[in-house]
Parts: sequence; structure tokens; C-alpha cells
Amino acid sequence: MKILVTNDDGIYSPGIYSLWEAAKEFGSVFVVAPDSQKSAVGHSITISKPLFIDKVTRENGFKGFSISGSPADCVKIGIKKILDTKPDLVLSGVNLGSNLGNNIIYSGTIAGAMEGAMQDIPSIAFSLDSFNPDSFKTSKMVIRKLIRLAIENKIFKKHVWNVNIPNCAVEELKGFKATEQGGQYFEDDFDSRIDPKGNRYFWMTGEMIDNDKNFKSDSFAVKNNYASITPIGYHISKQSSIQKIKDILL
Amino acid sequence: MKILVTNDDGIYSPGIYSLWEAAKEFGSVFVVAPDSQKSAVGHSITISKPLFIDKVTRENGFKGFSISGSPADCVKIGIKKILDTKPDLVLSGVNLGSNLGNNIIYSGTIAGAMEGAMQDIPSIAFSLDSFNPDSFKTSKMVIRKLIRLAIENKIFKKHVWNVNIPNCAVEELKGFKATEQGGQYFEDDFDSRIDPKGNRYFWMTGEMIDNDKNFKSDSFAVKNNYASITPIGYHISKQSSIQKIKDILL
Repeated sequence: MKILVTNDDGIYSPGIYSLWEAAKEFGSVFVVAPDSQKSAVGHSITISKPLFIDKVTRENGFKGFSISGSPADCVKIGIKKILDTKPDLVLSGVNLGSNLGNNIIYSGTIAGAMEGAMQDIPSIAFSLDSFNPDSFKTSKMVIRKLIRLAIENKIFKKHVWNVNIPNCAVEELKGFKATEQGGQYFEDDFDSRIDPKGNRYFWMTGEMIDNDKNFKSDSFAVKNNYASITPIGYHISKQSSIQKIKDILL
Repeated sequence: MKILVTNDDGIYSPGIYSLWEAAKEFGSVFVVAPDSQKSAVGHSITISKPLFIDKVTRENGFKGFSISGSPADCVKIGIKKILDTKPDLVLSGVNLGSNLGNNIIYSGTIAGAMEGAMQDIPSIAFSLDSFNPDSFKTSKMVIRKLIRLAIENKIFKKHVWNVNIPNCAVEELKGFKATEQGGQYFEDDFDSRIDPKGNRYFWMTGEMIDNDKNFKSDSFAVKNNYASITPIGYHISKQSSIQKIKDILL
């Protein structure tokens, strides 16, 4: 089994190391990941600049290629220039921080997996609901479960399986829930400052808002110590809305 | 009517100028757009760097603010720090080059409008099916028609109306079609080169593939000289796929 691994926190992140550790038990792992932190780059790709590539090694035999681009660039270049063929599976993550509700739209982690889905490859995005985990033990258990489903050909194509993992010990994990994209969103604001030359600049700030209260929601499942699996696609027009526009245009 | 205008080709592009020209006939226009070309940045946002802002003026009274970020950043900052309130309408474009089929996933033009939709504001993305238009006359006619629909409260919320305009004269435009996101995609490849220091680098290349053959498709409508309107959303999980995963997890 050929597994392409990417992420958006960069090739030196702890999350991609733990994803590599879990995945290598099941096949040949090809790590192709951004050379630096690329959080919130969404599904950006690099079309007006060249992409540089470098070999990276880490402890215990971790090998991979760093790319000076986005997660989606990494998957594209991984397939076309590193594997020279489509892998059996694309895995993206493990992201430090969940990707839930509206916020999935900004996610580079999900975009890496989505690029695989758009190329007809079973693809999974993994995010951990913590920015400072002590360990990725629970993540690895979840990753193994999902890779076994992939081996059984159960991960269907043209969708990303967006997997969010609660920040709890293995024995506290209550199980898995198939969920829908919930309503969690970031209410943003901007901190306005003046630079030493007198020019105004802004830092994005804000707070997470989450009013979801039932297990249909991705975030509610994670808050209650379930690993959440949400299937998300890239065909994002809706028949009912098209009909509405037809009626308006009449 | 307060109209927030953005794009992804940057505040100095010809497309945003023609959008401003058409929009200012209908209300107060606030232009907040990237300080440079941001094609294919998708729905990226800037969370780890500050955002700089500058005043820009162009011919015939065009005024606006340039931001050192993405189209989505521009809409966020436009609402929170420039208008200080939600506008009645967000318009993004006019993009040089269509945004059709799978390729909408990469589009900064659409992301600018999507940010408005996510904030409950009627939002429209405009793209012209040409990289080198002689004139934006047809675009302006289409923009005016859509703004009139907005004034009549017909542009429904929580969706972007993704409008693609054929590169034809006004008298050649056959009308408007409500379409679905079709199957057009970019089959990418990479041109591999060696830099003067001996390091490998890549340029993304490739070709557009489009096999759509009926008027349900966004690209087929545009190819046949119709302005295409596709409603696209940011709730991208599907109930039928969630049920499939439930069955698998049993």
C-alpha cells in the first residue's frame, strides 16, 4: 500500500511525525509536506512562483520531501513528481487544533486531503482538538482504525473524510461518530496597531463561537470525547438553490 | 446601499475597476482589495502575520484600501475596520479568467465572496472567461443585472452566486443560465528545472480538461455565450455520505 502523507503545520511538526509513525505500519509512506507552517492557507496553490523541493530526515528513519508551497501543492507534486503514480491513500495531518464547522473552509490540512479526493484517491484529514498535546497516542489509535478501513476499501472516493480527534487518553475515547459539518465559527476581530514609522497595521484576533448541542454536529461529538468523521466534498452547488435561481431568472 | 468590493487580482487590476464603475451607479462603494496579484490563494486567511493597509486612488475618482493579505482577509477587515458594519452586498471580481467546475475550489475571487456569504451578506463573485479582454462592457451589463436583483432582495444568503461571463460582445450574449458546478478541471503537471546553484525546482503547468456537454454545466453555458450563475455554499458535508459512514462504522 502506497500512502502519501502531508499536512499544513510543516514537515517538522510533531503531528506529521505521529501520522508517519502510525501509517508506516501499513505500507510505504511518502511524506511530502510544506517546508514551514502553512496554517489557514485553505486550498491555495502556487501558480505564479516556482516550487522548491528539499530532502528532510528526522529521528527513527523519518524521511520526506519539503516543498516551498501549500498542502495542495505538496499532494499535486507528490503524485506527479515523487511517486510518479497515484497513491492508494492520501493522509493529511495530524493538525494541532481541530477543523470543525465553518472553520474547515480555511483549513490547509483539509485542502491537502481534498486534493487527493479531487484526484479520485481515498483521502483523510486528521486534526487533534488541542494546540499543545502531551501525546498523540489517541490520534495514532484513530489513524490505525481509519487505515484499516482504507485497506478494506471502505473509504469512499470524491470526498474527504474529515476526522477530528478529542484531546483525551485512549481509555477515555468513547468511540466514533459520523457527523455533519456543524455551525462552529470564529467571530473575528482585528487588533489595530501603529508601526514605528507611523503606519497602521492589524492582527487578526477573535473568539470561537459554538452553539451546537447534538451529536449530528462534528464539534459536539469531539467535545464529548468521540472521534468525529465528517464526509466533505468539492461539488458545492446545490440542486435546490439552482432551482431557486431559475425561478428568479424567469 | 453599501457595497463592499474586493477581488483576487489586486486593487490595480482592470477587473476591479470595471466592477467599481458598475457598482457605484447603485450606492456607496467601499473597495478593499489585495495590494498585489493573489490568484489561486483559495480561502486562505492571514493568522500568523500582521496585515498592512494603504489608501489607493485611481482614475475618475476610484478610491479604496489595499491590504497585504488575501481576498478573504480584505472582506473580514473591510467589515470590521473600514465599514464598521455589514454591507448590504459583497461583490468580488471581475476576475480575469473563468472560475468553473473543480477549479472554483482554488479561487480567491470566490473566497472573497464566500467570506461575505459566511457572514450572512448577499455575495456575488464575477469572473470573465478571458485573460485578455478588450473591454468589460458585457461584464458591466451582467453586474448591473445582478445588483438590480440584489436591490429586489432576490440574492439569497449563505451562498455565493458564482457568476461567469462569456468573453463576447453585449449583443452576442444569449442570456443567463442557472447552472451547477460542472466537471471542468485542470490536469496539472510540473516543469522540472535546475537553478544556477544546482537545486531542483518546479513550475506548475498543465491543461484544462472539459467534457461537459449540456446546459446544466457552468462551463457549457459560458462556452455557449450565456452568463452562468451557480449557487455555491460552505456547508459541504452531505447527508447521504454521512449515512454511508454510519453504516461502515456499525
